[in-house]
Order: sequence, then structure tokens, then C-alpha cells
Amino acid sequence: MVNLKPRLYGWGFLILLTMSTLKEHQKFMRMAIRLSEKNVADAKGGPFGAVIVKAGKLIAKSANKVTLTNDPTAHAEVSAIRLACKKLQTFDLSGCVIYTSCEPCPMCLGAIYWARLDTIYYANTKTDAAAIGFDDQFIYEELELKMEQRKLPIIQLMRNEALPAFKQWELSPMKIDY
Amino acid sequence: MVNLKPRLYGWGFLILLTMSTLKEHQKFMRMAIRLSEKNVADAKGGPFGAVIVKAGKLIAKSANKVTLTNDPTAHAEVSAIRLACKKLQTFDLSGCVIYTSCEPCPMCLGAIYWARLDTIYYANTKTDAAAIGFDDQFIYEELELKMEQRKLPIIQLMRNEALPAFKQWELSPMKIDY
Repeated sequence: MVNLKPRLYGWGFLILLTMSTLKEHQKFMRMAIRLSEKNVADAKGGPFGAVIVKAGKLIAKSANKVTLTNDPTAHAEVSAIRLACKKLQTFDLSGCVIYTSCEPCPMCLGAIYWARLDTIYYANTKTDAAAIGFDDQFIYEELELKMEQRKLPIIQLMRNEALPAFKQWELSPMKIDY
Repeated sequence: MVNLKPRLYGWGFLILLTMSTLKEHQKFMRMAIRLSEKNVADAKGGPFGAVIVKAGKLIAKSANKVTLTNDPTAHAEVSAIRLACKKLQTFDLSGCVIYTSCEPCPMCLGAIYWARLDTIYYANTKTDAAAIGFDDQFIYEELELKMEQRKLPIIQLMRNEALPAFKQWELSPMKIDY
């Protein structure tokens, strides 16, 4: 006769673990969503919130602060990354995850890559955002085009004069890689 | 007989204008390049500088400050945008142009679009940057992939709970569009 007991215990444990993980995800996403709602209710900015978590612990949270602080880069994700880095005193958020109430725009996605976050959890989609006037899609499309096809003019000059700084960086014994 | 004089004056004026415009571009790009060099020499950060100009006037300038300020979003372009917005007390930099010593990464390009800058002037290319270890290319490639193909896990949850904030924004009489 096969002893099923340890197996059953194993499954039970796995189910409990999955349920508690899901609850944790929901708790932090709900926090991001509440920030997005409160931001609109308080007339402080766009309906976006983001939360950064490390090993189940809240590290930083922010709503969108573009109009509040006159900073077009102060999307919820970028602002939460800045706060998390300040708190942990590092520019490297490996081991952290981000919960954002909306799919990140290209700027925020870039910031998330540079900050080396482990995972992105998002709720609303960029299509939902476009439907209320936040057109990230335009930027996504521009990024996919060749430079000369983009709407925003981008012109190269003086590469020869700029290259030595790169050489200098390569040879610098004092540089901090990032 | 055709009187060529006015035409010649016209051409001369155009050539002078073009030369002075080129000189202005060179002046500001040189400023961005000097920032990139000084940043490496002072061991303050990566070899990148950016300058924001409005109607021929310097508005803001910054080198890369990622390691100096523990802020992975503090690339030269993003930092210059933030300073320019602070100075002009607006989140909208229409009418301004940016001179950057290197082709912007996707995060900075996103920030430039959100800030509504008119033109980008750049010197070094992203290929030059990759050659000294700054791999924006990886992020560009990730952005072009479908979510499920990306290396960075991105997971959707709780859209139903997040959507009401968008509705709330649409209906808000107090919102400031940006």
C-alpha cells in the first residue's frame, strides 16, 4: 500500500503557500490602486499608483506627481523607484518587485529595467489608459520607427568631439559601473 | 537685364543665418560634451551630459547622476528635463530643444516625449554606448517583444478593481490634463 499522507501534506502546503502568495499580491496591488483613486479624488494628479516591495515588505509607494511637482518624469513608477532607492540607499533594486495600477509607459519600463526590478505586476492596460487620454501608444510606436521616420526630429552632430569622453570612461580607474 | 542684387543679398543673409545657427548648435552640444567629460574626470558618474535650450537661451544642464544620487532614473537627459521644468515652473517644455552627448535610451526618449521637447540633438550613438558597457539596446529589444516573450516577467492582476479610478478621472471636474 502506498502511503499518501506525505504527498497530501505536500499538496496542502503548496495550496496554502499559493493562496498566501496570491493574497500578498492582492494586498500590494490594492495599495497601488488605492493610491490611483486617492490621487484623482484629491485632485493631485493622474489616476496612477505604484508600490515597491522586497521580500514581502513595503519599501516605497507613490502616486503620479507630474502636475503636482511640475515634473513630466514623475509618473507613479519612476517616483516609487526614486523613493525606494533613497530608502535602500542604492541605485540597484534587484530583489524588489513593483505593483503598478497601470501597464508602464516606455519611460517607466525603461526606468524599471535600469533599476533592475525582478517582476512587474500591473492592473489596467495601456489601451485602458489611451481610452482616457494617456497615449503611451504613440511613444511605443515612435520608438519602433527608424529615427528619420519619427515625428520628433532627432539630429546627430559632433560625434567625433563626444567620443573621447567614452574612451576616458573606459580607461577610468575610478568609475562605478551601473 | 535682371537685377541680381536683392537675390544675392538674400542668399548671403541665408548663409550667415545658417552659419550662426550651426555655431549655436555647436556651442550647446559642446557644453553637453564638456559635462560628459567632467563627470568622468570628477568620478561623479557616467560619460553623459545634456543641455536644454529655449530660443537660444540656456535653460538647464546636467550630467548623469545615477551613482552620485543613488537614482537609476537620473540620466543626464531626465535630470536636465527635471531642472528645466523646475526653472520654468511647468511640466511642458514645448519650445525647448535638448542637446545630449549621447543618443537617448528608451527611458530618456520617453521622458523627452512626455516633456514635449521640440528637437533632439545628439552626438554619440547607442552603439558607441553599448561598446563601453551601457546596453540600452537590450531595453530597446525588450520593448519590441510581446510581454510574454520578455526576459522581465510582467503579470496582470485585478484590472476590474483598478478600472474605476480611470472612470473617476474621466468624470473629474478638477483634473489637470498633461
